Amino acid sequence: MQTEDLLKQIEFIKEIDKLKYIQRRTKLFNSDRNENDAEHSWHLAMMAIILSMHSNVEIDVLKVVKMVLIHDIVEIDAGDTFIYDTTKNHVNTDEERVAAERIFGLLPAEQAQELIAVWEEFEAGESHEAKFAKSMDRLEPLLQNVSNNGGTWQEFNVDYQKVYEKKQVIKNGSVSIWNYAEKLIEESVEKGILKKDSSGR
Amino acid sequence: MQTEDLLKQIEFIKEIDKLKYIQRRTKLFNSDRNENDAEHSWHLAMMAIILSMHSNVEIDVLKVVKMVLIHDIVEIDAGDTFIYDTTKNHVNTDEERVAAERIFGLLPAEQAQELIAVWEEFEAGESHEAKFAKSMDRLEPLLQNVSNNGGTWQEFNVDYQKVYEKKQVIKNGSVSIWNYAEKLIEESVEKGILKKDSSGR
Repeated sequence: MQTEDLLKQIEFIKEIDKLKYIQRRTKLFNSDRNENDAEHSWHLAMMAIILSMHSNVEIDVLKVVKMVLIHDIVEIDAGDTFIYDTTKNHVNTDEERVAAERIFGLLPAEQAQELIAVWEEFEAGESHEAKFAKSMDRLEPLLQNVSNNGGTWQEFNVDYQKVYEKKQVIKNGSVSIWNYAEKLIEESVEKGILKKDSSGR
Repeated sequence: MQTEDLLKQIEFIKEIDKLKYIQRRTKLFNSDRNENDAEHSWHLAMMAIILSMHSNVEIDVLKVVKMVLIHDIVEIDAGDTFIYDTTKNHVNTDEERVAAERIFGLLPAEQAQELIAVWEEFEAGESHEAKFAKSMDRLEPLLQNVSNNGGTWQEFNVDYQKVYEKKQVIKNGSVSIWNYAEKLIEESVEKGILKKDSSGR
């Protein structure tokens, strides 16, 4: 039984290697090289560990780390959705659910169910852990775009209002990190790397 | 104080982005693209979570995950050392200690000390968590090399004995994973993707 479980787990471990090929829109810090989902997930896990002390409430750090490590695995089948893409729904699409069933379904049944539940909890964004995990997921590209003189904001003509709206969920995880992030956004407008509105003013 | 800590943490978060540029010798699964340290660290963290049930003894999974997430960060300054490189010492070189002090030293003092201690615990390889973390670090490239018809074994003329010697530390973390790994190594010799000795027999 233990051996049977191990063989299933090894298949899953091989399969998720594909996350390293899923390109995000966002570039690495001070760089024009796109980040891939595996690198992104590693960075969020590091951030969750380093920044957990700023959470609004006490959180289960291991659960947050699990969330951010697995949150993009469905993109192996469903592909990356750009956060400012207005033509695509971002929340738990059917395609993503099918992907979760297939990929986590490679694992022994109990473990598959556990990880699908963790992924769904992240997607729902309602638990304290999910709120903090989502803060991390919003903060990393903000830092990257600032370091890249506007990065994807410039490249895809994203304005202040859209950025503010997407980023303010950081507050749900951590008010103190949000205070920092809000200042970064305001400074980005002042520096001219984020437009006040998309008509270019 | 909290804000001061946050600013230091943000500097650390930016700095460790550089791990995404550190190339390992090993290639991704079924691939000729080199893996970088950030992708590798993400994969080990996933493996630690998925496989922790096979640990010889009960372990603190969050600590193992921290270990594997940070274990290569010193390579930002010290560079990657190939495990079969006989000209270089692998254990906690002076260069790596200096790197740990500099990079983790960007964090607030207490957190820096904590992470340096976790890194040193991993390097020492004596605690249950370090043993399991090292099992993961040995297992991933084994799976990769098998998927790549010998991979770095072929490329750098590494023979059975050297592989066996390096990989058997997997046993210290998990006897059941070692049983699987040992079989993979034996099968690799049978399939001719791992030489019995480096003279080519």
